[in-house]
Amino acid sequence: MYDGIVQELIDELGRLPGVGPKSAQRIAFHILQTPSFDVSRLAKLLAEVRERVKFCERCGNVSEAELCAICRDPRRDQTLICVVEDAKDVSAIERTREFRGLYHVLGGAINPMAGVGPNELRIRELMTRLADGTVQEIILATNPNLEGEATAAYLSRLMGDMEIAVTRLASGLPVGGDLEYADEVTLGRAFAGRRSA
Amino acid sequence: MYDGIVQELIDELGRLPGVGPKSAQRIAFHILQTPSFDVSRLAKLLAEVRERVKFCERCGNVSEAELCAICRDPRRDQTLICVVEDAKDVSAIERTREFRGLYHVLGGAINPMAGVGPNELRIRELMTRLADGTVQEIILATNPNLEGEATAAYLSRLMGDMEIAVTRLASGLPVGGDLEYADEVTLGRAFAGRRSA
Repeated sequence: MYDGIVQELIDELGRLPGVGPKSAQRIAFHILQTPSFDVSRLAKLLAEVRERVKFCERCGNVSEAELCAICRDPRRDQTLICVVEDAKDVSAIERTREFRGLYHVLGGAINPMAGVGPNELRIRELMTRLADGTVQEIILATNPNLEGEATAAYLSRLMGDMEIAVTRLASGLPVGGDLEYADEVTLGRAFAGRRSA
Repeated sequence: MYDGIVQELIDELGRLPGVGPKSAQRIAFHILQTPSFDVSRLAKLLAEVRERVKFCERCGNVSEAELCAICRDPRRDQTLICVVEDAKDVSAIERTREFRGLYHVLGGAINPMAGVGPNELRIRELMTRLADGTVQEIILATNPNLEGEATAAYLSRLMGDMEIAVTRLASGLPVGGDLEYADEVTLGRAFAGRRSA
């Protein structure tokens, strides 16, 4: 335990995800003892970030404008929408540089145990985007877990009558992974999804 | 990569010790997406902490006053000083509730490779505290590594002529540890410091 503000700061840092009491203490002392660390800049960003960041009105990605940078970019393929659970997934997919279409962030996945049903997700907004017939393909990129699969199945059924191709990201062995350490489900998927070599 | 301030915040969080790019992203999104997290409180603490926190004039521990809470406490044993490298060590020792004396924070350990010699540490301040003859024992609680041992050896030599007992924390097997996994040096120390059972 420390005097006053140091302990308050450690407690507050410890509320951040992935920051335990030891890390919180290390961070607090780093801030105190490292003159080159610009703590006022971090304080200013934290104070402003919630006010300045909106979510894109169209796709739900993080954005400082009404539309995010991807939705504003006319070079992106407007006929293709990749549906993800979270804005963090947009960033992960962008890093692959494999995808040049648009996104739609659901804001989670169907999870009855946690009280998350289709109405809690941005599914109505997705259907609205499909109304004008521009979109040709929907890529369901929800997580390959129970909730993500349920959400993908639900969306796939919902779009069954539309003239839109609905695809799902491939499941299989991670590149660079070791077959020996793959779990059964992943290995099963890798067999089911095998391609001619 | 995200728009503007979100990426700035991720970059800035990533400069904190032990926070990699993935953790920084998770923290930034937690702040954005968790209304119950009081980000303005954290921002305020960060903005104020360096101004409000001084270091104790006597012992070098963190403090919001000229003297820290431990130095101000008349119930602490004024004849005993525990010498540590860092203010974080004070907190670790306080948690044991085994020690009721005072502290002296050196601000590091002797490390010629990093350009830290005796003059860079609060050694002169320590010697001043010993001048009036109140202190009967100095416990050297620097880390049990190369730099900490060198610092303890240096201080021990420095106090060789004084009428003060100079002791060093015991080295040995960690409690709850497994002999099989102890490194040779620790195991060697445990043998050298063996006591009658």
